Amino acid sequence: MQNKQTECIIITIGEEIVSGLITDTNSAWLGRELYALGVDVREKTSVKDKEEHIYQAIEEAFKKVSLVLMTGGLGPTKDDRTKHALMRYFGCADSFSAETYARIEVLLGKFGRTPTEAHRQQAFLPDCAELLENRLGTAPGMCFRVGEKMLISMPGIPYEMEAIYTDHIPGLIRETFEVMPIYHRILMTAGEGESRLALMIRDIEDNLPEGLSIAYLPGLAQVRIRVSGRGNPAGRVQERVEETAHAIERLIKPYVFGYDNEPLESAVGRLLSEKRLTLGTAESCTGGHLAHLVTSVPGSSAYFMGSVIAYSNQVKTDLLGVRASTLEKHGAVSEQTVIEMSSNVRARLGTDFGLATSGIAGPGGGTPQKPVGTIWIACAGPEGVETRKLSLSKSRLINIRYTSVVCMTLLRKFILQSELC
Amino acid sequence: MQNKQTECIIITIGEEIVSGLITDTNSAWLGRELYALGVDVREKTSVKDKEEHIYQAIEEAFKKVSLVLMTGGLGPTKDDRTKHALMRYFGCADSFSAETYARIEVLLGKFGRTPTEAHRQQAFLPDCAELLENRLGTAPGMCFRVGEKMLISMPGIPYEMEAIYTDHIPGLIRETFEVMPIYHRILMTAGEGESRLALMIRDIEDNLPEGLSIAYLPGLAQVRIRVSGRGNPAGRVQERVEETAHAIERLIKPYVFGYDNEPLESAVGRLLSEKRLTLGTAESCTGGHLAHLVTSVPGSSAYFMGSVIAYSNQVKTDLLGVRASTLEKHGAVSEQTVIEMSSNVRARLGTDFGLATSGIAGPGGGTPQKPVGTIWIACAGPEGVETRKLSLSKSRLINIRYTSVVCMTLLRKFILQSELC
Repeated sequence: MQNKQTECIIITIGEEIVSGLITDTNSAWLGRELYALGVDVREKTSVKDKEEHIYQAIEEAFKKVSLVLMTGGLGPTKDDRTKHALMRYFGCADSFSAETYARIEVLLGKFGRTPTEAHRQQAFLPDCAELLENRLGTAPGMCFRVGEKMLISMPGIPYEMEAIYTDHIPGLIRETFEVMPIYHRILMTAGEGESRLALMIRDIEDNLPEGLSIAYLPGLAQVRIRVSGRGNPAGRVQERVEETAHAIERLIKPYVFGYDNEPLESAVGRLLSEKRLTLGTAESCTGGHLAHLVTSVPGSSAYFMGSVIAYSNQVKTDLLGVRASTLEKHGAVSEQTVIEMSSNVRARLGTDFGLATSGIAGPGGGTPQKPVGTIWIACAGPEGVETRKLSLSKSRLINIRYTSVVCMTLLRKFILQSELC
Repeated sequence: MQNKQTECIIITIGEEIVSGLITDTNSAWLGRELYALGVDVREKTSVKDKEEHIYQAIEEAFKKVSLVLMTGGLGPTKDDRTKHALMRYFGCADSFSAETYARIEVLLGKFGRTPTEAHRQQAFLPDCAELLENRLGTAPGMCFRVGEKMLISMPGIPYEMEAIYTDHIPGLIRETFEVMPIYHRILMTAGEGESRLALMIRDIEDNLPEGLSIAYLPGLAQVRIRVSGRGNPAGRVQERVEETAHAIERLIKPYVFGYDNEPLESAVGRLLSEKRLTLGTAESCTGGHLAHLVTSVPGSSAYFMGSVIAYSNQVKTDLLGVRASTLEKHGAVSEQTVIEMSSNVRARLGTDFGLATSGIAGPGGGTPQKPVGTIWIACAGPEGVETRKLSLSKSRLINIRYTSVVCMTLLRKFILQSELC
């Protein structure tokens, strides 16, 4: 069994990444693409826009691997030093690329703009690099080769980087390196924690076939379990991965909602689509996040009719028909209120299911009886209403997101149990 | 002027980070905290849950800096190898921490659970480490010291890591290292691109006082401009940073909506609060994201009344009173429709302003006349309605987010121009 794999290192560049002004999402995106391509990302490094640091990062990376992917530091402003570090490392000068400048002119023209001097500077590019057309932005990607080594530099703006990668990089890598795909199967679960799941599948994990591994990935109210394998012959490895994933799934069946990074909202959307069922939401504390989660799925207009975000009590009574007496007697954050919200939104929007949320998202607004993080949710369907009380954190955004996920998990259970199905 | 600063390296651990299954947000959070504390993050590295790789990353980091912060790899499952790498590097064994185990029991008890064997294994901890209590989870933080060097290891779950950092780390760092705070001022801008802004402030950038630097941080329909400085005497540096930031602001005034990472939605919320104005939204293509953006701000219930997410045409007519003839004649994605949506939501919710969106978020649903990314937005206020047509990308989520940001920018302009103010 041959397990040797092409390894790469990803270097992301930017003071703003290192100092945390922005979260580096490029390296995660690249990691996923490279993983699927069969390139093993050995490590990721982020350094500042300093020529010396970039140079050193390239040097260190090439001590460990033959393939380096870099993003960032190619913008038109003065703090972008990547080009200079690359010219120094690969020992070349820059020259004016008329083709690149022409493309910049066309691109800016679409927005009614003309190039600035900074844009002109961007068209000066290292003459030892193969330029990789950027169809969405001003800075092209660049490919450098020395002996067996290859370095690819791309701009840091995510959609530009993604376009350049997609257009050029898999081909460049495949023709230069041997790549052996990794086979993996991810079980998407919700409703049980990492430790408990690990306990349920302990026997399988203790007796894994050679070359296979299991990774747990806890998320907000969700855990992904990834079974991976690589080696030759490819068919046999894939088979083993599938067998192991199936064996795990049999042990934790109720918690598995999907596979291979399918988001919960997409899995639930699939269920609704298949069964031709519809959904509406009535949100107080989630403030639209639940509807956003549902509508982040392409094609959700087939099953999602709409939502009433009833942030004020006035909207709860006027648009959702929650009784004033209910709000007065039990308060907006109560089981009775979410029952009326979910039932009424279902009736008013004419949907099969209605989801409702009301709670104290925080950080302020708590009372001794209803502390911050007290949240009621309800799901109304043809056979009645089910409610849950959640006692969450002090963090507003975590509470909002967690509540939306639990709503989707409750809805999924409701759909699967419904007599409609 | 003394510019020497304590430098650190952040190492985040996890196969799931390197392979891109999750986006590493911990290192960004730590970067911001350390920056503010006056520690210069030199670089960030992410490695897999492999003892050898973790060991090597520690070794390499200590060649460059004296302070290393690590997150991840302390979970109860079998793929977490950080503890072993640390014991090997610092040359010690593990022993059972009764105190930690007792805390795990209490913590799990809150959720009606009892510890598993995996949890018991978590209580075996390196005997050369100072344990740092984790009030939110099972794995404590650890502090290792050798000579002048310090390494801090924390779990990878963000809220646990943040709690341990906040409770222990600034104190540990301050008593061990000299830290010199960096002063910075960030101008938050929307409505103009990075290149144009750079051009407007070129003269300032070409004549920066010593020790000062400017960084541009482009985001979705926004650009942050950060002016930083460090050195002694502290007061003088701070003064220069402020002077430079003011000078820049004077040149790009209309685009500056806030300072120091204040989100646009929060700046707009502040305006609404101060002027006692209220807002409602009527969303089609943004599907709740705009309401979510508004309600992600603590205290937004003071000015945000609610929203109607009118995904189906039925909801547009029934709940928002959009005329059937308008939908028939112009279509749901049209200037006329968003005008009615924004005006009607304003009237029905009794708010000062109404924002509306309708468009083709994609990836499907486009036509030659209205391709994917065609989006109409409207803002209705006491003095009338203003609309915008956006021609965005093929990416559903980018279109949704971009549209929400442009809506907030339009609302801000509307509020500032309004005679109500």
